[in-house]
Amino acid sequence: MIKIYKKAVLPKRFMASAVASGIKKTGKLDLALFYSLGLAKAACKFTANKIQAAPIKLNKRYLKSNKYFQAIIANSGNANCFNGRFGLSDAQETTRELARNLNINKQAILVASTGIIGRRLPLLKIKQAIPQLVKNMSREGIRQAKRAIMTTDTFSKEITLKFKIRNKIVTICAIAKGSGMIAPHMATMLCFIFTDASITQGALNKALKIAVDKSFNCITVDGCMSTNDSVILLANGASGNNTVDTNKYFSLFRGALSRTCLELAKMIVKDGEGASKFIQIKVGKAKSFSEAKRIALSIANSNLFKTAIYGEDPNFGRVVAAVGASGIDVREKDLKVKVSPLNKKEINVDVSINRGNASAIVYTSDLTPEYIKINAKYN
Amino acid sequence: MIKIYKKAVLPKRFMASAVASGIKKTGKLDLALFYSLGLAKAACKFTANKIQAAPIKLNKRYLKSNKYFQAIIANSGNANCFNGRFGLSDAQETTRELARNLNINKQAILVASTGIIGRRLPLLKIKQAIPQLVKNMSREGIRQAKRAIMTTDTFSKEITLKFKIRNKIVTICAIAKGSGMIAPHMATMLCFIFTDASITQGALNKALKIAVDKSFNCITVDGCMSTNDSVILLANGASGNNTVDTNKYFSLFRGALSRTCLELAKMIVKDGEGASKFIQIKVGKAKSFSEAKRIALSIANSNLFKTAIYGEDPNFGRVVAAVGASGIDVREKDLKVKVSPLNKKEINVDVSINRGNASAIVYTSDLTPEYIKINAKYN
Repeated sequence: MIKIYKKAVLPKRFMASAVASGIKKTGKLDLALFYSLGLAKAACKFTANKIQAAPIKLNKRYLKSNKYFQAIIANSGNANCFNGRFGLSDAQETTRELARNLNINKQAILVASTGIIGRRLPLLKIKQAIPQLVKNMSREGIRQAKRAIMTTDTFSKEITLKFKIRNKIVTICAIAKGSGMIAPHMATMLCFIFTDASITQGALNKALKIAVDKSFNCITVDGCMSTNDSVILLANGASGNNTVDTNKYFSLFRGALSRTCLELAKMIVKDGEGASKFIQIKVGKAKSFSEAKRIALSIANSNLFKTAIYGEDPNFGRVVAAVGASGIDVREKDLKVKVSPLNKKEINVDVSINRGNASAIVYTSDLTPEYIKINAKYN
Repeated sequence: MIKIYKKAVLPKRFMASAVASGIKKTGKLDLALFYSLGLAKAACKFTANKIQAAPIKLNKRYLKSNKYFQAIIANSGNANCFNGRFGLSDAQETTRELARNLNINKQAILVASTGIIGRRLPLLKIKQAIPQLVKNMSREGIRQAKRAIMTTDTFSKEITLKFKIRNKIVTICAIAKGSGMIAPHMATMLCFIFTDASITQGALNKALKIAVDKSFNCITVDGCMSTNDSVILLANGASGNNTVDTNKYFSLFRGALSRTCLELAKMIVKDGEGASKFIQIKVGKAKSFSEAKRIALSIANSNLFKTAIYGEDPNFGRVVAAVGASGIDVREKDLKVKVSPLNKKEINVDVSINRGNASAIVYTSDLTPEYIKINAKYN
């Protein structure tokens, strides 16, 4: 039995905080800290974009040289990406300063940034804000922290799952931000997941991979892949459950984690920039999951399809054209397309291609004048 | 010396005509005929979409079984695609009826359709209009014919080139229609090219392939690939020039044909649905043309890039993200991006990746609220 709460409630021995450090000129919260009182294992997934932001490069380094982690520091308003030789050292200096304040090893800190690409991180502002950030830490700090990672998001994405492993209650809590540049292999998307489960590193990695593949890697808002996408999962073992490994209790933990990621992924799509409709595209009777997903994404990323949904114009020819454009050899007589009534907020597109037994579901939003308005000016 | 005229003037022994057959409910011209008084060789390029419209299937059949052609019949308002078992027989019946009226073999007729997908072609209307279409044929008929193939186009795309092979004047004349669903491997794009050059079949095929690769296959309006794209080239040899083969006079003919296609391709982009700006994206210092093109297309199809250009917002981070999203292993320190001033109608994006000596140029338009308005309702 998994209990699901639509609010972020941190698992045992996690804390969080946020401040307005001045990275965002609006004076809004822009710097968040997540902290585990004990050492935690980490599992991460980063963007497949070949140009990667400095925080991702630094995380990969730390993940290689270190096994246990205690904190994540994340900022919004600046992507710390493609800004020359300072990017990496600025990220590193951030962890150094935070480590000093937390009295931990700097390599036990993971970093994340989201915002505009190509500008130097205002390092001084961040360093000046860190003492306050550390001082503010509390169990309730997640309420501010979830807002501090937002950019064009109109609502916070958060969820908490509770379930039992033998007689111990395990909690998974996650927050995320969207909401443009959302495409498979992630997006300008940050997601932080915290659990007090006791779990082996192998099981943690495997569960996260499975969960991300069918959630964050199955959503697209605009087909644009970001340089900063990160999913960071910390597991501190504080619940004292029998340890999950790849055999024992794995399907239970994996199921809960997958559900966590899928719910957040759907929230990201629902808050897609300018989105007026939530669209679920299912491709069935495919030879493989990846074939089904490729077709579903070809539809989901078709501007013509997305504008037709916005206009409530049942132009199913655009679905057909997108299926054919995917490059998969679908025979015309085997192709079946069903679209639910378009005057609703949630639209279901069902495609069947009579090639096998696999299927995939992809989530997307419509393309609206509001998307263009949001993105024509962005600073 | 090639002379270029911005108007369609048919080469020797070609005629054309158009009628309003009633396929379009607006009463506008919707059926066009192009006719060569003598037998002509044909070279064609069709969409790479796996779902292909009936006219394309029929053309492929006729091109296999037949060597010489005399006519093209094209309609707008209905794509004759994904409409079940009638599609192919309707296309065939159209050629049969036209063949009867022209007193030629039906297999000497090529067909093209553009418009909405999934509806049956109004065959009776077409058959009833064919006698008038044949009766109307004239050298000046191209003026109506070029309008009869238009859908959402706001202006006709036409060009004529004249050049000499030895002492004979050779003419290439071409018309095209865009203007949404425009992506590499062509678009809802029809292009008909007529030349009175005498040329071998091998040289004709080769010249068209080269011309299309760097023109119609290098443009994108919305990244959507159509089911109906067709480039059909007829060469009737009426100019009496020394025959072009793959050695003799080839570069001259190829150059003129490439120029023809490139000029039309640019016009299609300039008339892209809702376009307010014309964008040229050059990727240089790549390992190969295809690598350069892949990166250029990744930029050209990025909705975030296209909206930034529309908003005149110099957000070059979106170019960087799109380069990385292409999957090509560009090193950050090797990547240079230059964007010309955004307050102009024509924008140049220059990307250099320091991997080799190849380059590619891709043309696209911006993404505007008007694109969404046009495509939210389309019948």
